[in-house]
Amino acid sequence: MINRARVAVVGVGNNISALVQGIAFYRDSGSLVGIRRPVVDGLGVGDVDIVAAFAVSDEKVGADLTDAIFMAPNNYPRIGAGLPPSGVRVQWGLTDETGIDRVAQALAGAEVVLYMAPSGRPEVARAYAEAALRAGVAFVNATSDVVARDPHLLDRFEAAGLPLLGDDLTSQFGTSIVHHALLGLLEERGLTLVSSYQVNLGGTEDFRNLTQHGGSKMVSKLNALTGDQATKDKVQIAPLGYLSQLASEKVVYLNVEAQSWGGSPVSLDVKLKVHDPSGGAGVTIDLIRMAVGALRGGRGGYAAEAAALLKSPPGTAH
Amino acid sequence: MINRARVAVVGVGNNISALVQGIAFYRDSGSLVGIRRPVVDGLGVGDVDIVAAFAVSDEKVGADLTDAIFMAPNNYPRIGAGLPPSGVRVQWGLTDETGIDRVAQALAGAEVVLYMAPSGRPEVARAYAEAALRAGVAFVNATSDVVARDPHLLDRFEAAGLPLLGDDLTSQFGTSIVHHALLGLLEERGLTLVSSYQVNLGGTEDFRNLTQHGGSKMVSKLNALTGDQATKDKVQIAPLGYLSQLASEKVVYLNVEAQSWGGSPVSLDVKLKVHDPSGGAGVTIDLIRMAVGALRGGRGGYAAEAAALLKSPPGTAH
Amino acid sequence: MINRARVAVVGVGNNISALVQGIAFYRDSGSLVGIRRPVVDGLGVGDVDIVAAFAVSDEKVGADLTDAIFMAPNNYPRIGAGLPPSGVRVQWGLTDETGIDRVAQALAGAEVVLYMAPSGRPEVARAYAEAALRAGVAFVNATSDVVARDPHLLDRFEAAGLPLLGDDLTSQFGTSIVHHALLGLLEERGLTLVSSYQVNLGGTEDFRNLTQHGGSKMVSKLNALTGDQATKDKVQIAPLGYLSQLASEKVVYLNVEAQSWGGSPVSLDVKLKVHDPSGGAGVTIDLIRMAVGALRGGRGGYAAEAAALLKSPPGTAH
Amino acid sequence: MINRARVAVVGVGNNISALVQGIAFYRDSGSLVGIRRPVVDGLGVGDVDIVAAFAVSDEKVGADLTDAIFMAPNNYPRIGAGLPPSGVRVQWGLTDETGIDRVAQALAGAEVVLYMAPSGRPEVARAYAEAALRAGVAFVNATSDVVARDPHLLDRFEAAGLPLLGDDLTSQFGTSIVHHALLGLLEERGLTLVSSYQVNLGGTEDFRNLTQHGGSKMVSKLNALTGDQATKDKVQIAPLGYLSQLASEKVVYLNVEAQSWGGSPVSLDVKLKVHDPSGGAGVTIDLIRMAVGALRGGRGGYAAEAAALLKSPPGTAH
Ligand SMILES: NC(=O)c1ccc[n+]([C@@H]2O[C@H](COP(=O)([O-])OP(=O)(O)OC[C@H]3O[C@@H](n4cnc5c(N)ncnc54)[C@H](O)[C@@H]3O)[C@@H](O)[C@H]2O)c1
Ligand SMILES: NC(=O)c1ccc[n+]([C@@H]2O[C@H](COP(=O)([O-])OP(=O)(O)OC[C@H]3O[C@@H](n4cnc5c(N)ncnc54)[C@H](O)[C@@H]3O)[C@@H](O)[C@H]2O)c1
Ligand SMILES: NC(=O)c1ccc[n+]([C@@H]2O[C@H](COP(=O)([O-])OP(=O)(O)OC[C@H]3O[C@@H](n4cnc5c(N)ncnc54)[C@H](O)[C@@H]3O)[C@@H](O)[C@H]2O)c1
Ligand SMILES: NC(=O)c1ccc[n+]([C@@H]2O[C@H](COP(=O)([O-])OP(=O)(O)OC[C@H]3O[C@@H](n4cnc5c(N)ncnc54)[C@H](O)[C@@H]3O)[C@@H](O)[C@H]2O)c1
Repeated sequence: MINRARVAVVGVGNNISALVQGIAFYRDSGSLVGIRRPVVDGLGVGDVDIVAAFAVSDEKVGADLTDAIFMAPNNYPRIGAGLPPSGVRVQWGLTDETGIDRVAQALAGAEVVLYMAPSGRPEVARAYAEAALRAGVAFVNATSDVVARDPHLLDRFEAAGLPLLGDDLTSQFGTSIVHHALLGLLEERGLTLVSSYQVNLGGTEDFRNLTQHGGSKMVSKLNALTGDQATKDKVQIAPLGYLSQLASEKVVYLNVEAQSWGGSPVSLDVKLKVHDPSGGAGVTIDLIRMAVGALRGGRGGYAAEAAALLKSPPGTAH
Repeated sequence: MINRARVAVVGVGNNISALVQGIAFYRDSGSLVGIRRPVVDGLGVGDVDIVAAFAVSDEKVGADLTDAIFMAPNNYPRIGAGLPPSGVRVQWGLTDETGIDRVAQALAGAEVVLYMAPSGRPEVARAYAEAALRAGVAFVNATSDVVARDPHLLDRFEAAGLPLLGDDLTSQFGTSIVHHALLGLLEERGLTLVSSYQVNLGGTEDFRNLTQHGGSKMVSKLNALTGDQATKDKVQIAPLGYLSQLASEKVVYLNVEAQSWGGSPVSLDVKLKVHDPSGGAGVTIDLIRMAVGALRGGRGGYAAEAAALLKSPPGTAH
Repeated sequence: MINRARVAVVGVGNNISALVQGIAFYRDSGSLVGIRRPVVDGLGVGDVDIVAAFAVSDEKVGADLTDAIFMAPNNYPRIGAGLPPSGVRVQWGLTDETGIDRVAQALAGAEVVLYMAPSGRPEVARAYAEAALRAGVAFVNATSDVVARDPHLLDRFEAAGLPLLGDDLTSQFGTSIVHHALLGLLEERGLTLVSSYQVNLGGTEDFRNLTQHGGSKMVSKLNALTGDQATKDKVQIAPLGYLSQLASEKVVYLNVEAQSWGGSPVSLDVKLKVHDPSGGAGVTIDLIRMAVGALRGGRGGYAAEAAALLKSPPGTAH
Repeated sequence: MINRARVAVVGVGNNISALVQGIAFYRDSGSLVGIRRPVVDGLGVGDVDIVAAFAVSDEKVGADLTDAIFMAPNNYPRIGAGLPPSGVRVQWGLTDETGIDRVAQALAGAEVVLYMAPSGRPEVARAYAEAALRAGVAFVNATSDVVARDPHLLDRFEAAGLPLLGDDLTSQFGTSIVHHALLGLLEERGLTLVSSYQVNLGGTEDFRNLTQHGGSKMVSKLNALTGDQATKDKVQIAPLGYLSQLASEKVVYLNVEAQSWGGSPVSLDVKLKVHDPSGGAGVTIDLIRMAVGALRGGRGGYAAEAAALLKSPPGTAH
């Protein structure tokens, strides 16, 4: 019998709600719907157990994880009938270096820490990474904060035989992927891009945070589209639009204007609807299993097979 | 100095209008906009000369090719300021086997026949192919009629050292390409297709013809999407809609409903606008140059490098 | 205490499923969501009781109405948790004049017959109307068959003091209403219509029937848009597209191209999704209550207040 | 023979480009395309002459009006072949109270001042209004600055027998009109609004200005939609998106989610494309003619017939 992966999660937000509910859905149904990699390093998607959870809100701390994932401002929907209590009580996390030892102790029994707090506070991310090192646990950084890209930190994980995967996950299906695919298709068919734009609307807490440090996000969105400067010059990205009515749904409008033979106009309009947290969880599940696989196989540091799942693996700019 | 390719065209419809106007546009402007292959076998897109043209309508026959391409029911737009007269007078074509020798004589000086009449009358296509054989000229079949897929005919072209490229060209950019790319993208990202449909609207004479033998076209459209039966079962294609107001514009609506992690819904809606004749001409220009290159290089019969440009190359079903 | 309206329904298809489930939903919830007229002639939407039902399929006949509404080919979704059995057993209906007396007897206790069988068989509609006359019951014709437009029949209902409302109901919200509103808005603002088209896709049995006598339906759809010939000449309607995957959902694409000041282009693209049977039931509920109100008030024949709910009231062409 | 209206324009931006080009187009073509009111107070759209123009950019001042309307940052397209020189040389305008007398003198011969500078500097608007008063000329304020809503100023115009029309024009066709019409249609049909959003994208200088004082614009956009608080609570407006690639085109995405009978979902998605300056000019032409008609008829102050063309007529809040 397989040993299930044992995960400690940091941040009990929408992505964790999608992750927890999804694992339960797959266990109950035996379904493979919407799964990219049924088995990674011998582990199925149902072979992942959450064994600890950290939050910093008064309400969530102390609650059972199953209850906490539905607390505001989380707004990812319930995807099935009632989940049983998880038996995992949410604990106080870290907001700075105070308490690293406490958290390290609470990690006993976990194999990997999944870091899923809001992006934008690298010092918090490092404090959790430090706790993971002390506890001898692998680390997955789903946020855009610099963790795996810090060579010194990466060396320490490697030396300790602990995997460190990050930074920032690429969603299973989202704006960048679709926009990139369409621009690539044009190029492959010999069309000439005239102009293109992208509008992103969302209603999650994560999305609201992004609207507050929009500038850097725009750049990273443009980067995600293409390495070709001529194309980038023709693509414009409208300001992120936070619309609470969308809840965990994300709505994207894409427009592409191009020219084919003889300068003949070609136009493409796309409306895309996804749930961002699902797109995150669908990749997180693979990163977790890769980290656990590497840990069990004694491979510390970065795992190259994670590259396709990450926006900013070690070596990329920050 | 390069010897320009010398082409005889059969059918003076929208595709020929797009081809003729496009060649003039590229010669005048030096632009490379919307060109997939700037050079094929040493020939640029401006290195193609139309040296003869065949039609079967009283109006077009006798007219200069430059005038004929704008005669009804053609409705491809003028893409630039006035074209000078071509000096090529449109001649009577074939409607059956009568007159093959006459046409063969008229082909003297041409290197390749481009067959661009309406699809659906294989015996007419064969009569022109016969004329090409007698005249020692290569043959490109842009229609869906069985010509290159006829092994006996292919053998005769091969034996005569004459290239025979066909059947049916894949448009430079159109419904099938976009729909196929999106379905492929879903699969690559591990999403599960729930349902998908495609609506095609057009206003050309060619489109109107298609609405009359819709059944087979639907099957071929489904074939173009995927080889996977499970996917095909989930894709439905609405009846072709002929709307004269669209003229040479084609409008396509695509919808894709899928599931990502946890069964979470993903939906994609696309509106695509193209000019079908431009999409045809953008590929025709490559087939012509491949045929001339093969002829000059002494390679008779089918040319494997054309496969990517054809819907039904030799060996596929008919 | 109010006397509830007592209705016999003919045809147990999607519209009746929407009607029955809707009434139950409003009774249970007390909600007024999606209701156009909360009270008509003193009757609320929950004050309507189905007391008899007629069908012609082996499966439905003999079943409780609550079960019958979910039997194939009906595909209107369940809109709430389990409905209790209705206590109404579905009976054999009429397919010609045989059995009119049997049905007339079965109508005892009803106040109004709601005729909701497939459109296109006027002789069947008349047979049911005959039964209603014999039973002394009002008649609502939701189909496009000529019933209320037959002056002789209308006279007989009037003479008998029995209301006769019809023919053909206008949906609560659908293609014609939206398209008409947008064209009207253009005109009001002084824009000049250039071209417009409409694409209708659906997956119900009713929709599949329509695709088989498409011609007349197209005409009536154009009629529904406007009385102005200049506008009609610029509007084109694509062939109805039956796509089973849509089930009871209807998807409509509208495009409007116009010109404002200086000939400047204006374009509007609309995608509309509705459930046709809901749109039908939302109007049916008003027709029923008007018929019962008129019956109780002793007003036989046609009731002018129904005009806004009908596509073809008495006096319109057939 | 009619006496043509004589107009002085303030600001030579996109709206003036659309106005000037449109008048020339209608004179040349005799067309009535896109005109809301062919004749107002006896004046056709071609009966309007621009007799003076004021700007504050070094390039435009001194140039012929016909050249100035195509100078950056103006990006409204040329709508026809070459315009002849207008004979009107652009003059320095006002940026504060200095120079009012100079401008008043330059207004000799004009009947009305059309104020078309950027919104947001009421003191500049007043300076021009002062000049109009001194010169005995009517005033039309197309901007959202408070001019006609200032009771004291309005009294002075009235006392002087000079019309004063404003403030802020409603576009001929735009986001608010379409969104408002669709929400009204829902209500009329008894549907219940669930949620709705609006996304505005544009590329003009005027649009870029708006993105800088977004807050108040959002409120006014919401106001334009409806007076009903329950509806307003369900409508959200995404941040304005300035995309230079759109030039003078405005692109709007609207979404409406509602419920019909039984709570059944209805959804509407709209993409609207217009040229904002055309929409402005199409209304300006009417305001000018109303002002001249009132002046000639000796009716000073506000003209009630202008109300439908204005967003903020006298009496509304500021
Ligand atoms: N597709 C995706 O969803 C996607 C893709 C890439 C990256 N991400 C990143 O994943 C992260 C999580 O996304 P989400 O949608 O779940 O966000 P979220 O805001 O819903 O959840 C984050 C949670 O972390 C909690 N938190 C804040 N500070 C904490 C701390 N010091 N210790 C513990 N918990 C803390 C918050 O209270 C919140 O509950 C974000 O950084 C996001 O940018 C998501
Ligand atoms: N993207 C594309 O446009 C595309 C893609 C694949 C295949 N094709 C095929 O290319 C062909 C041409 O398309 P089109 O849009 O130009 O069509 P079209 O109908 O505009 O032109 C065909 C012309 O051939 C003429 N013709 C008919 N019989 C003839 C005969 N016996 N001899 C000479 N001329 C004859 C017709 O009068 C007409 O002018 C069609 O068979 C079409 O199916 C087009
Ligand atoms: N928005 C709308 O849905 C709308 C609008 C206008 C008119 N209508 C009309 O309403 C009618 C019903 O629509 P629907 O969607 O429920 O159709 P449906 O096909 O789902 O239902 C019709 C039912 O009538 C039954 N039937 C057939 N012949 C019968 C007979 N002789 N006696 C008794 N039952 C018989 C069929 O078996 C079927 O179950 C159609 O005529 C349709 O055109 C609907
Ligand atoms: N649909 C519409 O286009 C619409 C609707 C309502 C209101 N408006 C208002 O109309 C006005 C004009 O719009 P636009 O698109 O033409 O804007 P624009 O920015 O293209 O043009 C304004 C011009 O005024 C000039 N200007 C600035 N200060 C000036 C001064 N002190 N004196 C003279 N000229 C000056 C600017 O240099 C510019 O050329 C704006 O206030 C806009 O908000 C437009």
